Amino acid sequence: MRTFCFLIVILCSTIARSQENQIKKIFDEALTNGKSYEMLEFLSNNIGGRLSGSPQAAAAVEYTRQKMIEFGFDTVFLQPVMVPHWIRGETEIGRIISKTVGSIDVNICALGNSIGTGNGGVSSGIIEVQNFEELEEMGIEKIEGNIIFFNRPMDPTLIQTFSAYGGAVNQRGEGASEAAKYGAIGVVVRSMTLSQDDIPHTGSMNYSEGIAKIPAIAISTNDANLLSTILKTDKETQFYFETHSEMLPDVLSYNVVGEIYGSGFPDEYIIVGGHLDSWDLGDGSHDDGAGCVQSIEVLRLFKQLGIIPQHTLRAVMFMNEENGLRGGRKYAELAELNNETHIAAIESDRGGFTPKGFTIGGSYEKISSWAPLFQPYGINEFIKGGGGADIGPLREQGTTLIGYYPDPQRYFDYHHAASDTFDKVNKRELELGAAAMAALVYLIDTYGL
Amino acid sequence: MRTFCFLIVILCSTIARSQENQIKKIFDEALTNGKSYEMLEFLSNNIGGRLSGSPQAAAAVEYTRQKMIEFGFDTVFLQPVMVPHWIRGETEIGRIISKTVGSIDVNICALGNSIGTGNGGVSSGIIEVQNFEELEEMGIEKIEGNIIFFNRPMDPTLIQTFSAYGGAVNQRGEGASEAAKYGAIGVVVRSMTLSQDDIPHTGSMNYSEGIAKIPAIAISTNDANLLSTILKTDKETQFYFETHSEMLPDVLSYNVVGEIYGSGFPDEYIIVGGHLDSWDLGDGSHDDGAGCVQSIEVLRLFKQLGIIPQHTLRAVMFMNEENGLRGGRKYAELAELNNETHIAAIESDRGGFTPKGFTIGGSYEKISSWAPLFQPYGINEFIKGGGGADIGPLREQGTTLIGYYPDPQRYFDYHHAASDTFDKVNKRELELGAAAMAALVYLIDTYGL
Repeated sequence: MRTFCFLIVILCSTIARSQENQIKKIFDEALTNGKSYEMLEFLSNNIGGRLSGSPQAAAAVEYTRQKMIEFGFDTVFLQPVMVPHWIRGETEIGRIISKTVGSIDVNICALGNSIGTGNGGVSSGIIEVQNFEELEEMGIEKIEGNIIFFNRPMDPTLIQTFSAYGGAVNQRGEGASEAAKYGAIGVVVRSMTLSQDDIPHTGSMNYSEGIAKIPAIAISTNDANLLSTILKTDKETQFYFETHSEMLPDVLSYNVVGEIYGSGFPDEYIIVGGHLDSWDLGDGSHDDGAGCVQSIEVLRLFKQLGIIPQHTLRAVMFMNEENGLRGGRKYAELAELNNETHIAAIESDRGGFTPKGFTIGGSYEKISSWAPLFQPYGINEFIKGGGGADIGPLREQGTTLIGYYPDPQRYFDYHHAASDTFDKVNKRELELGAAAMAALVYLIDTYGL
Repeated sequence: MRTFCFLIVILCSTIARSQENQIKKIFDEALTNGKSYEMLEFLSNNIGGRLSGSPQAAAAVEYTRQKMIEFGFDTVFLQPVMVPHWIRGETEIGRIISKTVGSIDVNICALGNSIGTGNGGVSSGIIEVQNFEELEEMGIEKIEGNIIFFNRPMDPTLIQTFSAYGGAVNQRGEGASEAAKYGAIGVVVRSMTLSQDDIPHTGSMNYSEGIAKIPAIAISTNDANLLSTILKTDKETQFYFETHSEMLPDVLSYNVVGEIYGSGFPDEYIIVGGHLDSWDLGDGSHDDGAGCVQSIEVLRLFKQLGIIPQHTLRAVMFMNEENGLRGGRKYAELAELNNETHIAAIESDRGGFTPKGFTIGGSYEKISSWAPLFQPYGINEFIKGGGGADIGPLREQGTTLIGYYPDPQRYFDYHHAASDTFDKVNKRELELGAAAMAALVYLIDTYGL
């Protein structure tokens, strides 16, 4: 018996060491020979912003498809999906007109999915509010014919900046329809960022059924503060804005899927993904070029290191996360249709920053029991939480949904703005993220969930 | 007895909650009303690089002194210290001259403390080596009259980049004297960075006693790779460089110390510090403007929140960490002379990035037992390790030395280079670091070590 126990101990420690070695190999390869950074450079600098339906989005489909073929994945295929085709239009003007300070141009941009004002713009008095309750209190008599200025900032004291975003983003998403209920003719929304600067941040908004569609713009945080200050002394301040955005008919686009076949359970899938579309103002490096190239890199690391997975692995480039989620829905629909069992889905859509851990939507005990294997890499946070928008629709089939969780402090400085560009991504940080995801895929593949 | 135990449990949980609340107040204040970022902006953009002995270093002494007076610290004083006065000189030229590829100018800079070549420069054959052992193997017959090119890269697979730095930096520090032993007439050192780019990184070097002083430069990593590639095909490649650096006589400078008196143990000190001097190529934002403004911010947070410390707290701006450590030595010397008991010293000199934790040189069990209080802020790493160069001389009096440990992935991209500028610092990351240090000072002050 003692010999038996001894052998078990030896065996266990050998297994532990072999896990450690394999994970170290993954990190070493990513950090010395990683391809995520050069892929992102191409996606960002050669293709650029990839709004759904744009030529750039189509180019990104082709580029990532080619890269996955080049890396020798077992199969690479497209999933056709019809996507919305919103375009910004060229001219965007925002202007404060006040008797006390004169006329001041401010930095604005149309919100995604919003209708444009067309030539002539929208001009009226402007009323600042912090939330929808204030609209209700003021009612139609005060609001009608005015522009509503939503100015509730993200809460800077929240360490998880995504919670701060969650606490403010309804102003952008639903503000226009909420204000239109009371006869507002346009909305100006404080940019969703914790940074004080001159850069407006776009992002999707949606019109509620049966309510008048009114134009909607974001204003930079500096200009939001300026406007708020001016309104304190001059309640008669007028605001003018002009946008030419437009929703065109849906167009055909694609999710891009690369696969490495599973040697043991080829019909069971572990997927890693990001979304290939981005907003148009920057080049979408952090949101979500980073997640796409990291996902491809995960499978490349398996190929390069000769790790043969038991389950089939997929890198999925989802299309249209930003203003429709059509790609994510289509993926889940096809998974259902084809009777594919997805045991786990990992999404990277919080930027290409230094890994802190994962947010885990299921199998928490098992996944967090692997924490010690991540500790040498400074990865310590295994938090119960959501996986990501694109993989969300897989919840229905019981897939364990996991979100890659990088350091969240800088993300909203760049999110949906002209400043989301390649130079904001650090090579090592991006590579460490890919390695962290590959290590987690390796553990799920080896030990199941 | 049962009632007693119950009361103890109530008491303990009340104390725990009060700790949590106080720490939350510290973080909230730093993130909503913090002053570290605006101080750093002034130090970086209005004063700039602060090489010991320079007018900028003197301006930084005065600026930080004024700020600490302005914040109402109980006393602010200067500690006079004589510092080296090395100057770079204006022209710096580096050139590869090869029969195969012609003449190529490369990006170089003189290493700190090095002698210049003067007009005419240094020109000769150039030999690439990875370490000092290779010098010994080649000996005087092969080396004499040549330039030595130290090209051992930092190891990218080390997650703690400071270990990678430690594994390469002897080439910069001692390379010149090691090469001069064998008759080399100059050294070219691969920049100490994990980034592949065109920016040379300076840093201190020292000449050994009794060995000829030869000029020494750093070369950018891209140009180091280029030079190495050219040398593989053309061993006759010549290298030319010209520098005009010079060591002038020592000048008078100062450590700047701000104090809040302890209410219980005024003769026992807890200090937080960074170094006020920096290299001259950038503006020293991460190295170590960040550490200085964070240290001032720690004491400001105590004042602002009305936390009356039991021990006397000091924010110390050390002078001359980069090329002499005179300020750190002087501080310890005066502490000894004045019979000051320093129970703990915390240094921030690893950049103003998102906090990961602390490296702890003593009282490890006690300090790491506070880890759960830091967890809500994503601060999880309590590592046994060194505190920092400036506080090192306090070790002799038994002070517990602690290093602030931020995310280390980006640090060496900017370290000692023209790219170490204010725009590389993120406001929230800087503020979180100040709050983390203030929280640790609060715990040490409240519970002792």
